Amino acid sequence: MSKLRLNITMSLDGYVAGPDQSLEEPLGINGEKLHDWAVVLRSFQQIHGKEGGETGPNDQILGEMFADIGANIMGRNMFGPPAGGPWSSSAPWKGWWGKNPPYHTAVFVLTHHAREPLVMEGGTTFYFVTDGIESALAQAKKAAGGKDVLINGGANVAQQYLKAGLIDEMEIHVVPMLLGSGERLFDNTDARQTRYECVRLVTSPSVTHYKYRLRS
Amino acid sequence: MSKLRLNITMSLDGYVAGPDQSLEEPLGINGEKLHDWAVVLRSFQQIHGKEGGETGPNDQILGEMFADIGANIMGRNMFGPPAGGPWSSSAPWKGWWGKNPPYHTAVFVLTHHAREPLVMEGGTTFYFVTDGIESALAQAKKAAGGKDVLINGGANVAQQYLKAGLIDEMEIHVVPMLLGSGERLFDNTDARQTRYECVRLVTSPSVTHYKYRLRS
Repeated sequence: MSKLRLNITMSLDGYVAGPDQSLEEPLGINGEKLHDWAVVLRSFQQIHGKEGGETGPNDQILGEMFADIGANIMGRNMFGPPAGGPWSSSAPWKGWWGKNPPYHTAVFVLTHHAREPLVMEGGTTFYFVTDGIESALAQAKKAAGGKDVLINGGANVAQQYLKAGLIDEMEIHVVPMLLGSGERLFDNTDARQTRYECVRLVTSPSVTHYKYRLRS
Repeated sequence: MSKLRLNITMSLDGYVAGPDQSLEEPLGINGEKLHDWAVVLRSFQQIHGKEGGETGPNDQILGEMFADIGANIMGRNMFGPPAGGPWSSSAPWKGWWGKNPPYHTAVFVLTHHAREPLVMEGGTTFYFVTDGIESALAQAKKAAGGKDVLINGGANVAQQYLKAGLIDEMEIHVVPMLLGSGERLFDNTDARQTRYECVRLVTSPSVTHYKYRLRS
């Protein structure tokens, strides 16, 4: 059955992005360092159309993240720099990832502002959803054709799905750095989190992977 | 040289106690489960004057926590149930730990309300400090006679010392459960946290130990 999954990297003090996100620093101050563990891996290189990269347990777990994904969901603040308001029609933002984004599926972007779908190379099409998380999920499940749907972030979208109890499986990649401030993952949530049970824990000096599944 | 250390157990979503702390549930709803990993260990049993308990890497790390400690610091909300206001003179609260508390040193309790020192069995004396964290630290260092000073919690006291940049070394014991709400450890802090560097990471299914040291 198609599952809704969340995969996200978090600092030990709970942040998935640093403070002061901007066009120059999309993940905020020191935020990019959160993903140092991933960018060196073969799965990461592959999904970006490149060769090489390290293999091993971290690579295997990152590979699982991309496997069997039929559609993606993200928030507007992950798709583009902090801006808000309607989309520019003269120079519309096309994502951070160049012509061939590393999704290769339909990507549903949660936003308050309508926009026509944006077709990219490599199988990625961005659809802009203005009527909330449940609508985005229904559209993503349909597009996924039986495969899983992956929430990519950011924190706000992850929190909304977590609070609604809609996430079936999540893997939190914890890096042992402290960011001090920024976008917190586990915020605005509640006791529903206690329904998640840790089903796998894999560690390395650079990252510890905590995999959770919703108790039935 | 005498160091100020912090050892504390945290859920993966960042809480060191659950919500709704009370006389009946000192660590709040589900909060006691945070320490399941520790209570089964030999070091824990020893410090409570008992025999037996499991050995192994977790026990070794817990043993390190208690080693070379010459004085302890804690907040009033760790010493007693949530109450506030002056201490009762008719039935003064004597801590959660019975006649022989597991500290066996001077313990400096941060509070807004003065009180005479409280001498317990087994070497523990509680001193009540009303003039802030730096005074408590100075008194504790003096009492420790060259040994280290340990901050026991709770969250609020840990945050105050963290924010003041006074903690030399800390070990966060992360249990892979999600509490959803409660007392958050890394809150009201700031970029000073980025000065801590992870110097050791030891994992097991029940707990992962993240040891940090202040970069010099």
